[in-house]
Amino acid sequence: MSENNSISGRRLNQPISGNEIPRFAGITTMLRLPHVEDPKQLDVGFIGVPLDIGTANKSGTRYGPRQIRAESAMIRACNQATRAAPYESLAVGDLGDVATNPYSLERAVDGIEEHFSRILDADCIPLAMGGDHTLTLPILRAMAKKHGPVAVIHVDGHSDTSDTMFGERIAHGTMFRRAVEEKLVNPRQVIQIGLRGTGFGTDDFDWAREQGFWNVPAERCWHRSLDPLMMEVRKRFSNTPVYLTFDIDSLDPAFAPGTGAIEPGGLTTIQGIEIIRGMKGLNVVGCDLVEVLPYCDQAGNTAGVAANLLFEMLCVLPGVKYHQARDPSSFRSDLPVEWI
Amino acid sequence: MSENNSISGRRLNQPISGNEIPRFAGITTMLRLPHVEDPKQLDVGFIGVPLDIGTANKSGTRYGPRQIRAESAMIRACNQATRAAPYESLAVGDLGDVATNPYSLERAVDGIEEHFSRILDADCIPLAMGGDHTLTLPILRAMAKKHGPVAVIHVDGHSDTSDTMFGERIAHGTMFRRAVEEKLVNPRQVIQIGLRGTGFGTDDFDWAREQGFWNVPAERCWHRSLDPLMMEVRKRFSNTPVYLTFDIDSLDPAFAPGTGAIEPGGLTTIQGIEIIRGMKGLNVVGCDLVEVLPYCDQAGNTAGVAANLLFEMLCVLPGVKYHQARDPSSFRSDLPVEWI
Amino acid sequence: MSENNSISGRRLNQPISGNEIPRFAGITTMLRLPHVEDPKQLDVGFIGVPLDIGTANKSGTRYGPRQIRAESAMIRACNQATRAAPYESLAVGDLGDVATNPYSLERAVDGIEEHFSRILDADCIPLAMGGDHTLTLPILRAMAKKHGPVAVIHVDGHSDTSDTMFGERIAHGTMFRRAVEEKLVNPRQVIQIGLRGTGFGTDDFDWAREQGFWNVPAERCWHRSLDPLMMEVRKRFSNTPVYLTFDIDSLDPAFAPGTGAIEPGGLTTIQGIEIIRGMKGLNVVGCDLVEVLPYCDQAGNTAGVAANLLFEMLCVLPGVKYHQARDPSSFRSDLPVEWI
Amino acid sequence: MSENNSISGRRLNQPISGNEIPRFAGITTMLRLPHVEDPKQLDVGFIGVPLDIGTANKSGTRYGPRQIRAESAMIRACNQATRAAPYESLAVGDLGDVATNPYSLERAVDGIEEHFSRILDADCIPLAMGGDHTLTLPILRAMAKKHGPVAVIHVDGHSDTSDTMFGERIAHGTMFRRAVEEKLVNPRQVIQIGLRGTGFGTDDFDWAREQGFWNVPAERCWHRSLDPLMMEVRKRFSNTPVYLTFDIDSLDPAFAPGTGAIEPGGLTTIQGIEIIRGMKGLNVVGCDLVEVLPYCDQAGNTAGVAANLLFEMLCVLPGVKYHQARDPSSFRSDLPVEWI
Amino acid sequence: MSENNSISGRRLNQPISGNEIPRFAGITTMLRLPHVEDPKQLDVGFIGVPLDIGTANKSGTRYGPRQIRAESAMIRACNQATRAAPYESLAVGDLGDVATNPYSLERAVDGIEEHFSRILDADCIPLAMGGDHTLTLPILRAMAKKHGPVAVIHVDGHSDTSDTMFGERIAHGTMFRRAVEEKLVNPRQVIQIGLRGTGFGTDDFDWAREQGFWNVPAERCWHRSLDPLMMEVRKRFSNTPVYLTFDIDSLDPAFAPGTGAIEPGGLTTIQGIEIIRGMKGLNVVGCDLVEVLPYCDQAGNTAGVAANLLFEMLCVLPGVKYHQARDPSSFRSDLPVEWI
Amino acid sequence: MSENNSISGRRLNQPISGNEIPRFAGITTMLRLPHVEDPKQLDVGFIGVPLDIGTANKSGTRYGPRQIRAESAMIRACNQATRAAPYESLAVGDLGDVATNPYSLERAVDGIEEHFSRILDADCIPLAMGGDHTLTLPILRAMAKKHGPVAVIHVDGHSDTSDTMFGERIAHGTMFRRAVEEKLVNPRQVIQIGLRGTGFGTDDFDWAREQGFWNVPAERCWHRSLDPLMMEVRKRFSNTPVYLTFDIDSLDPAFAPGTGAIEPGGLTTIQGIEIIRGMKGLNVVGCDLVEVLPYCDQAGNTAGVAANLLFEMLCVLPGVKYHQARDPSSFRSDLPVEWI
Repeated sequence: MSENNSISGRRLNQPISGNEIPRFAGITTMLRLPHVEDPKQLDVGFIGVPLDIGTANKSGTRYGPRQIRAESAMIRACNQATRAAPYESLAVGDLGDVATNPYSLERAVDGIEEHFSRILDADCIPLAMGGDHTLTLPILRAMAKKHGPVAVIHVDGHSDTSDTMFGERIAHGTMFRRAVEEKLVNPRQVIQIGLRGTGFGTDDFDWAREQGFWNVPAERCWHRSLDPLMMEVRKRFSNTPVYLTFDIDSLDPAFAPGTGAIEPGGLTTIQGIEIIRGMKGLNVVGCDLVEVLPYCDQAGNTAGVAANLLFEMLCVLPGVKYHQARDPSSFRSDLPVEWI
Repeated sequence: MSENNSISGRRLNQPISGNEIPRFAGITTMLRLPHVEDPKQLDVGFIGVPLDIGTANKSGTRYGPRQIRAESAMIRACNQATRAAPYESLAVGDLGDVATNPYSLERAVDGIEEHFSRILDADCIPLAMGGDHTLTLPILRAMAKKHGPVAVIHVDGHSDTSDTMFGERIAHGTMFRRAVEEKLVNPRQVIQIGLRGTGFGTDDFDWAREQGFWNVPAERCWHRSLDPLMMEVRKRFSNTPVYLTFDIDSLDPAFAPGTGAIEPGGLTTIQGIEIIRGMKGLNVVGCDLVEVLPYCDQAGNTAGVAANLLFEMLCVLPGVKYHQARDPSSFRSDLPVEWI
Repeated sequence: MSENNSISGRRLNQPISGNEIPRFAGITTMLRLPHVEDPKQLDVGFIGVPLDIGTANKSGTRYGPRQIRAESAMIRACNQATRAAPYESLAVGDLGDVATNPYSLERAVDGIEEHFSRILDADCIPLAMGGDHTLTLPILRAMAKKHGPVAVIHVDGHSDTSDTMFGERIAHGTMFRRAVEEKLVNPRQVIQIGLRGTGFGTDDFDWAREQGFWNVPAERCWHRSLDPLMMEVRKRFSNTPVYLTFDIDSLDPAFAPGTGAIEPGGLTTIQGIEIIRGMKGLNVVGCDLVEVLPYCDQAGNTAGVAANLLFEMLCVLPGVKYHQARDPSSFRSDLPVEWI
Repeated sequence: MSENNSISGRRLNQPISGNEIPRFAGITTMLRLPHVEDPKQLDVGFIGVPLDIGTANKSGTRYGPRQIRAESAMIRACNQATRAAPYESLAVGDLGDVATNPYSLERAVDGIEEHFSRILDADCIPLAMGGDHTLTLPILRAMAKKHGPVAVIHVDGHSDTSDTMFGERIAHGTMFRRAVEEKLVNPRQVIQIGLRGTGFGTDDFDWAREQGFWNVPAERCWHRSLDPLMMEVRKRFSNTPVYLTFDIDSLDPAFAPGTGAIEPGGLTTIQGIEIIRGMKGLNVVGCDLVEVLPYCDQAGNTAGVAANLLFEMLCVLPGVKYHQARDPSSFRSDLPVEWI
Repeated sequence: MSENNSISGRRLNQPISGNEIPRFAGITTMLRLPHVEDPKQLDVGFIGVPLDIGTANKSGTRYGPRQIRAESAMIRACNQATRAAPYESLAVGDLGDVATNPYSLERAVDGIEEHFSRILDADCIPLAMGGDHTLTLPILRAMAKKHGPVAVIHVDGHSDTSDTMFGERIAHGTMFRRAVEEKLVNPRQVIQIGLRGTGFGTDDFDWAREQGFWNVPAERCWHRSLDPLMMEVRKRFSNTPVYLTFDIDSLDPAFAPGTGAIEPGGLTTIQGIEIIRGMKGLNVVGCDLVEVLPYCDQAGNTAGVAANLLFEMLCVLPGVKYHQARDPSSFRSDLPVEWI
Repeated sequence: MSENNSISGRRLNQPISGNEIPRFAGITTMLRLPHVEDPKQLDVGFIGVPLDIGTANKSGTRYGPRQIRAESAMIRACNQATRAAPYESLAVGDLGDVATNPYSLERAVDGIEEHFSRILDADCIPLAMGGDHTLTLPILRAMAKKHGPVAVIHVDGHSDTSDTMFGERIAHGTMFRRAVEEKLVNPRQVIQIGLRGTGFGTDDFDWAREQGFWNVPAERCWHRSLDPLMMEVRKRFSNTPVYLTFDIDSLDPAFAPGTGAIEPGGLTTIQGIEIIRGMKGLNVVGCDLVEVLPYCDQAGNTAGVAANLLFEMLCVLPGVKYHQARDPSSFRSDLPVEWI
């Protein structure tokens, strides 16, 4: 492996620096990475899945990928907090969007599965940008074909385990029922974090619990750090292929106003970051971030938060290079160490 | 009482399911409940009070009720966290709006009092949706006629105990001064939670304290759960008729951007929910949620939060049926119990 | 000093009361204070610095001062929490805006320095309203001319210690590198609070640390009060002339959506207030609040928060009169004292 | 027929006056008419068709009906210009919305057809509020079952005669191809007004012309009144059952910004009104107004224009009572008559 | 009269040039003119009337004056089309706002009358910026006290001659009924231009016509210039004191989206300008521009149009100096003269 | 030249069809054309110039190119009105953006000139997307180097012939003064269409007229078609190299709300299209469209109009293939020919 190649031998890419082309300029790609057509050139590829016809209420998530790309322009190459330098060891790029059928959810879902299968066949880890949450079902189908049933970290305001919606078996609230039925996931290795809100009955979450899902309601997360939770998760998930699906409505609407099915009392962005950073060391085989709704995101900040969370996901993928932290004593601060 | 009747013998209503009519469709009513003209058919009625001519600064809360109804469309029948199933024991409906005089605050206030008196005469518990906070005064007048002086839980960024505003005795910052003077409330059973911000003097809150109000400044609530506070409240308020008035600007503007007199450093939505859930067991005789300003609520989320808080209020009314929680050991999770 | 004069003998001003002119009416000035041309009449002057040509990404902060003034209309004369009554001992007014060159950053920066030098020469403490963060450099130049190298409390999501941006030495991300080079600040008395996000390398913050900056990353602030941090700061900064620069993007975008370079996982407004209130007793010689971007602030709340933070800054300036708190036992509350 | 009955003997309804309930208050229905479940009670019924899964680009028209109802609140009972008094001779009401399947366009389309067949069976003239333009196909299917092939006045920026879109035969750009194939319309009695913009080829409009459609490009309408055009239409369409489908994107985006596929250079609202008023005397059997997109309609004015156009449609239905104009000489104006 | 004095001997003011202070900077006043407290210093004064409690539907016009001032910043000193140079012969300034009672329409109306009486007593011509249209009644009361019954040019989408609204005699739709009853206007010299839309009956406009009003419906204005109409007006109004009241909803919502009671099919901005420019030579004694609603004016353009119309009003006041146009033959253009 | 090659022998490109990738999907490029780095591959290249530091008032046009690209997604391959099929004879692509210096207008201007010189050297016709209007100066510099002084069709609300702004010689209101001084244009072949609004003096436009500019004020364009004007222009400009600069604020703000210096009473979009279509046959050597301000363009329609105008520009470039119109008699319409 030469210096400019990734751990798999692929050519490394760098995001365009704001010193070369201003952040408001240029053809808009995710994180200002090259647009690459062929997943074989990449260890990790961002893929947009512009979908909203699986949506029960507010439509418009089809514009999620475009907006996430636009708002990713401020994100630089390295993670200051964790010292991750993902572009130094992984070949990362923007694979563009799935050409989702705008009129037929069924055919859109099939197209997504096929598209992700092709990416997985290329040994490229997909980081999907939604798009409504329905898209996770076809991705899990593709995942299961490659990896068998996977473990899932499911961060969401909703359980998404309904049997049908408006009589349909596929929609953005039924994916995890289908995933269990189709054996795409190991139900005892599904953790759902952030669930809350109202239900058709008072036992909506019980079906999932009966399958073995670990159900962490939002109320359990109130007023505390999720670092200890993630320690538990890491203990139990080591080595298993893990898929992360992050519904932006897991966050409280204060932190993610731009989504279509808000539930008050949700996670903070800080907790969202704790979850992702807490996955470091797991065998992450793919991730998605879904339900960004630009129409309800006047300032673009929900897309901006989403872009940052996707970057944090990139930083915990297997093989990412982490720089050593400087010895604090080398700095001339006399503040107590707990603050620096 | 037959199976389809409420505890008072009235006919039970169910919200329209999203599986029958999509959540974006149909004539918009609160929580997709039936629009009922006659309060005698209801144990609990939601009433809009579209008012903004009592507003000192940003007008537009007259559109609060319409927007709260629209954004309530996602709320389902049961409370997942508390297992409350309000529609199984109470007859609940949407009583429409008070026909508030748009040009004369005085006549609007009189009309609101008369309207609520009629509802209370029908033994129907009102849940009012504002509208500016002035509306609480005529509601308290109607309450006092029926119940005598009531206890009040007043969640707000402001004390609303000014003597006059611009020379007027009635406006959205004077209601609790009037309520004391008119003996509508028991001043030693008024708790004000979330007060903060600037004042005309440094002693604006002292008049209320001198009357016996319990004044809980926002600063006392920072960085902690309000469960312990509500335990104190429940100890002291048992059996008394209690009225809850919830000004959405009690919440920090991050959590409720759509209101007209923001005060930074406010409560979180989580704390707001803790207050309401903490009222379970009290003799709640009515509630309001006020000051939602759709013009400043681009995504509709403030109205969405308001609708959820109103649903939480419904869930703590006397007589609501609560389902038993499943025995956690019946689920196959091995996560530490503190998380599930 | 007569009753209507400030501690320096200047004539005291009062903000226009909402009982005299409604809060939505009148020529818009900061905090409804008089517009004063001559800084010699003031102990403290608010000055707008409408600047955005130092901005790397989203422009529009040139409208920050106008929007902050508009949203300051709700702020009354006294601080309820701290009992500060700034207008009783200090002559405060609105000095209008610097006439910033809209086309040449270099000449704009020179003009700002000259403008602030004039204000400082008049022994008037400036509270600057931005405008992009570049404006802090010329203010520090003016400060150093008067006070020598100052201590700095720098609250920000970014370190702003880049050497150049797009090849330019002056821009809104380079000011603190320049300030060190030009000896405008004492590097061992610079504390940076709230830093986070991505960097060009993983060591972007290290240069500052090597100079002696105390670097408090946002992660160190998560889930806790900053009161203890400020106690440390007060210990070390006593007597030194201290300048506060508060970039509104130090706050999490939930709390300050209207800014152009959001970084998720930031401070809460509460922590921002704790920092400022924690400066009481220091020798504060000037402050700024920067990077308010009205285009991304549909409800005006970011400007509203900014206006409140600027008022809190006013309340901790040397010489502000604080009223005595009433003895809690004089109130008739039987709530535990921790809540009142 | 009694005085309070319509020409068909049904009970007349009146919109709620703004003097009884303020225009911002009350449960929101179209034109403040009663919500009526049974079409048999109505001569004319407004029906919402909340649909957007037939949309090629910007989604969100599912919220069209809700927004049109909200913005219809200002419309009073009579047409000042034409002296039409529709509520004096026709029983008019709001029939609510079709329960459109949110996930399957095919099933949504079938449901719409069935719903409109039921309305037509009740001898109620439907005025449909969209929703995306796909909805016209199932309405035409229902129309043809009752009336045989109908004449169509199609006001639109687009021809909507594509064969397929993304491989699908049903979508919001193919309805008139299908309508011809299925013999739902008489192609020689289809007039398309306002067509413009770009095409896949330069002959996109030619297929329609070959079928016999009268194709009036927008360019033919520039700078002039459409009264003469409508005179031609009335000459040729007398007695035939005529259906009007009005895509709001026929109007220039200046006049209808809130829609998803704008084409510059379109009709003015005045021309739109001229078309509808010019239909007076025709045998109008139904109308729709489609493609209102609230997300792109910040002020609500596109929905407001749509509501007014729907009211104008109501005013030209067969059987509407028109009041006599006063003799101008009875007024004391000495302005030249061309102006009064 | 010295060179720097107005025709009445008052000191001339100049708007601040954009070359001195950028257009986005400085304390915001109308047209960047000085804020003047005393009307005796002015020949013409702009006055804000921040009022919206006379509004039947969408509130928020209380922010009209603030927004008009902000958007007036681009307007320079001279009228390029008419060669008017108002600041060379008239002393013009910004008189600030009336302190309108926010809670009592009755007292607000009285306060406005008193305020304008004071201005008229100072021989200052008022140009009022609304605020809802109710404000015209107290201004006409003040006008009649000084001038006797005035002629009125009333440009509006509505007649505003209702007897009562919601039982009230004063509101934003009754002013001209009151004005006739109180003999504030000469009914045979009232011209209403742009009326349209729906009415309670089909004869809503007839009462006004019976009084002698010249009623020019919008339909009479479609597709043509209003220059000929204004020629008629000038013929009949010469010498009479004329008051112009311009409701921004006279314009089609395409041209003035930011208002609360849109009526489609209205005037163009061009026609609005033709009306005002056509008043040159009349004895104009005052003007207002009302009903600007910033909440519905995302881009600020309605306020911008309003500011320009107010400047055009200034340019046709008696005594304005007009520069001579250059002889076209002095330019070297060979385009046909009709274009230059 | 093979079938897939342009008239210059370059490879032809096709925009991605909406039937292949939905219009809301994919990496966003202008008109869904390929992103091409090398101008030598293109006969015509779209280039973004993201610039706003030459702006006197509202900043934010730096986001113009991104938004124009996004809103261009609906534009198909052919012009239905003129039968132009530009992609059949010209190689067209998206050349990305100029890397404009965000902090130094001077260096930004130099960079733009250099960038366009390189494009012109490649014999590629540039169609520039702004960006503030300052960008036209460096483009004209590059043009003059290649073509000598050019003729200019300047469509604008402003003359942009100021000598300096805020003391600077280069800004978005001085370009045509500089262009004359630097002999970049032939002043007798500069036509300015749409000028209006206020000026520093009443003779602001006279300098330009003295140079020989043809100055067509907006007032000359009111209420009529501009076809006759363009006939005059074509007569006089034949053969000369012509550059078109189209400031979107030439249009009335009704038609182009999203720009920063609106002037009421402007051109209609129809007139804008007439101007461009009227240029067919001229020797067009380059075009720009400037001043699109996304912050003021909530619905994106100003960018959408801009994208369509840029497509119309493409359609009148030398060498574009035009299809023959079908013989109207081949269609079966019996409408009078003036309508079809």
